[in-house]
Amino acid sequence: MGLSFWNELRERMGELRDLTEISSLLAWDQETFMPPGGAPHRAAQLATLQTVLHERLIHPRLGELLALADQHPSLDETQRRMVANLARERNRAVRVPRSLVQELARRQSLAVEAWRAARERRDFSLLAPHLAELVRLKREQADAIGHEGERYDALLDAYEPGMRVSRLEPLLRELGKALVPMVQAVTEAKPPPRWRYEAHRFPVERQRRFAQLLVERMGFGTAQGRLDESSHPFTCAIGSGDVRLTTRYDERNPWVGIFGAIHEAGHGLYEQNLPAEHSRDTIGVPASMGLHESQSRLWENAVGRSLSFWEGLEGELRRAFPEALDGVSIREVQASACRVSRSLIRVDADELTYNLHILVRFELELALIRGELEVQDLPAAWNEKMDAYLGVVPEDDAQGVLQDIHWAWGEFGYFPSYTLGNLYAALLYERMQAELPAMDEELRRGNLLPVRDWLVEKVHRLGHRWDAEEIVRRATGKSLETGALVRYLADRYGSLYGVALP
Amino acid sequence: MGLSFWNELRERMGELRDLTEISSLLAWDQETFMPPGGAPHRAAQLATLQTVLHERLIHPRLGELLALADQHPSLDETQRRMVANLARERNRAVRVPRSLVQELARRQSLAVEAWRAARERRDFSLLAPHLAELVRLKREQADAIGHEGERYDALLDAYEPGMRVSRLEPLLRELGKALVPMVQAVTEAKPPPRWRYEAHRFPVERQRRFAQLLVERMGFGTAQGRLDESSHPFTCAIGSGDVRLTTRYDERNPWVGIFGAIHEAGHGLYEQNLPAEHSRDTIGVPASMGLHESQSRLWENAVGRSLSFWEGLEGELRRAFPEALDGVSIREVQASACRVSRSLIRVDADELTYNLHILVRFELELALIRGELEVQDLPAAWNEKMDAYLGVVPEDDAQGVLQDIHWAWGEFGYFPSYTLGNLYAALLYERMQAELPAMDEELRRGNLLPVRDWLVEKVHRLGHRWDAEEIVRRATGKSLETGALVRYLADRYGSLYGVALP
Repeated sequence: MGLSFWNELRERMGELRDLTEISSLLAWDQETFMPPGGAPHRAAQLATLQTVLHERLIHPRLGELLALADQHPSLDETQRRMVANLARERNRAVRVPRSLVQELARRQSLAVEAWRAARERRDFSLLAPHLAELVRLKREQADAIGHEGERYDALLDAYEPGMRVSRLEPLLRELGKALVPMVQAVTEAKPPPRWRYEAHRFPVERQRRFAQLLVERMGFGTAQGRLDESSHPFTCAIGSGDVRLTTRYDERNPWVGIFGAIHEAGHGLYEQNLPAEHSRDTIGVPASMGLHESQSRLWENAVGRSLSFWEGLEGELRRAFPEALDGVSIREVQASACRVSRSLIRVDADELTYNLHILVRFELELALIRGELEVQDLPAAWNEKMDAYLGVVPEDDAQGVLQDIHWAWGEFGYFPSYTLGNLYAALLYERMQAELPAMDEELRRGNLLPVRDWLVEKVHRLGHRWDAEEIVRRATGKSLETGALVRYLADRYGSLYGVALP
Repeated sequence: MGLSFWNELRERMGELRDLTEISSLLAWDQETFMPPGGAPHRAAQLATLQTVLHERLIHPRLGELLALADQHPSLDETQRRMVANLARERNRAVRVPRSLVQELARRQSLAVEAWRAARERRDFSLLAPHLAELVRLKREQADAIGHEGERYDALLDAYEPGMRVSRLEPLLRELGKALVPMVQAVTEAKPPPRWRYEAHRFPVERQRRFAQLLVERMGFGTAQGRLDESSHPFTCAIGSGDVRLTTRYDERNPWVGIFGAIHEAGHGLYEQNLPAEHSRDTIGVPASMGLHESQSRLWENAVGRSLSFWEGLEGELRRAFPEALDGVSIREVQASACRVSRSLIRVDADELTYNLHILVRFELELALIRGELEVQDLPAAWNEKMDAYLGVVPEDDAQGVLQDIHWAWGEFGYFPSYTLGNLYAALLYERMQAELPAMDEELRRGNLLPVRDWLVEKVHRLGHRWDAEEIVRRATGKSLETGALVRYLADRYGSLYGVALP
């Protein structure tokens, strides 16, 4: 279509993508190779880039072009989707006044400082006033963006376009109800014999080589990406041809590096296989944070903690760490990767208890945004919920309500992404197994590419052509539900721990 | 000063610096860690960033603010200099029409492609039409920027603010006249005994450690910078607290990595020690490309090829490469670092012949811009000048006129920076020796910090408060002249080769 307004609109979309990718590079560099002295300038560079991005997003000419596109009869479905995605993003930016954006940025920065101090001194009161202010501002932001009576929806939509509390809350509560007795049964059962890796040391250089082998085996393109190290593993896309993963290595625990690499490569494969023809527009991006997380978790958990997966990698694993695996069976290796415990810390939690950690956070942040809970009552509420869902109570707030940075960052509405990821992943994995009957056999042979290829076709190559749930629905024939995840967990942990789960 | 227009102006200056630094990071990453698949997006990212930078530089509001500043009675000298530097940069951008900027970018991109092909096939005719077009466009650009009858001045000013052909040309010709007989005498003399490193191999990992030691010994701050590797060594400042050097290593020739590291660390020290209080304005930048080059060359040549320097590093050098230095004296090491030969290739040239290579290029590009030489006659003219100045003639154009990428990049006016660097360096070094009588003794003890500290005080910390020649004049009491460089070269090479030089 030779419409000149359309070419202009696409060019503006492309510039916004470029600027976003540049931000990603700056963030990646900051966590990997930047010398410490770069920090003050990096903050200024990122701030200027944010200003430029914001100015270009709210630019009146972009509004005109979107209005023209909206009314134009000859746009096809793909073009309409591009326009809708951009308009959604722009509306969120335009509706929030500049003064509120600045006040949020300022408050977040103060809250993050306060959070560090509070965690170190185990004193929630240092964070409380900043958090109360942030909650107030987030409610204001939600009102500016607009909602239909449920403020949390406006925040959630930033991470999970199209999702609503009315749909999410019952699902998460239902999942919680199913998980509590399963955790009870499994933690009371006699655990299967497992690999005692704690008795060994794992040299970082060997771990590095093994992690590299893993991500390549998954089909992660090393000419289109890299694997480096940082204190917190993450994935950064600087274009689909340039996807940077990081993991971290612990000499005493090989699982940290292994699952870090698998998890991030799951994210990375999504980014590498987004539709190339949309690499500079609003379709060629992941559909949601939840769907992104489904990719990392499907690989990390469903595939990466399966017996077949480790059978297929047995030779490589033994070659990497011969002494540590001497006399250890591959079943014991898997059992080590699948230990369940009632723990206090989310990032260390196993896949059976993980979603209960999220449920605690979701219910609390929903109550804060709804005005049903005061910030000062948060620690007590946290401890109560931990007790109710996980049967453990932190001794201090550093092990409790202060453990995550998300709220200090102002990221209310983000936590559900983790559980949505697990729910999507279970649906996709169940369907993948049905469509690929030989998949387990391929895994046992060390061939991971059928998994990658199925995900590319059903998820990655669609980009943000539809919202996440619609993509999953088209792939599996099912809407979001808890059944697939509960079945999957009952199956794996029931048989590993020799108990009958629901 | 609480003037609101001034705060706005400084903020805009700061944003321009931020965007320039971001460009530097993108370029650094492209040459070091970017996977190959990142290339297409990186090109788009850089183009968008250039567009944003250009838009902000020519923005009418910036023009208004500069006009306000220009007329404001209460600005101090420092503020006036900031304004003058920014106005100069902005005028260059504003005066060149957008269509010409785009045409230049397009032609340069085509010329670079053509240059690669021409060099590979040793066929200048593949490049000639593109180069002719570029010369035409550069003349047009010079006219747009403005000049007083000498188009080359407008181009030169981009690299060496304030410099003029009327001043440069006689200096370079005078230098050429002095150098030709010196090269004659030295190349006819019996060379001193030297280290035959060619008989050995130098493992890259050991070279890397030695290069790191060198740059740290020079006072390069490793918390404010890094040393990495790339196929062509370069220095990239992403803020004065974040300066990235690269070098390259050749297993067969340790000098490549060593002098690459010293040279780039010379540049890097300049960037690290620019005035911190001007880190986001137009004073806190290097004063010119020539002055930048003087810092790398003073370290690489005057210091890095001196006997005292290698005496001070003898222990470290022997520990790094014990076998290769077995039975070799430190005098032989220095002699190896100071070999003179009439060579064809600029980047491999020694410091005695180097400026003759530049003279060839300067005279030719000046003639092209003046319209006194046609592009089709360039290869013959090149060979004639090489014969006249260096007594060698390339067998083909790949070894001759096609060896450098600069003209294909459209960088007419850049080459003199190299010789200006050598001239400034010689003046500074002569003065430094006079002011620091114990300097040689310190070098022999391995203490390089007096050199660094003198340069920080006399050059680095001034940023672009004055133009380059004025900075050198204030440091040395002398205007630009060839005497110091000729004396320095005559002294070193006369004694090394045992000949009387002028």
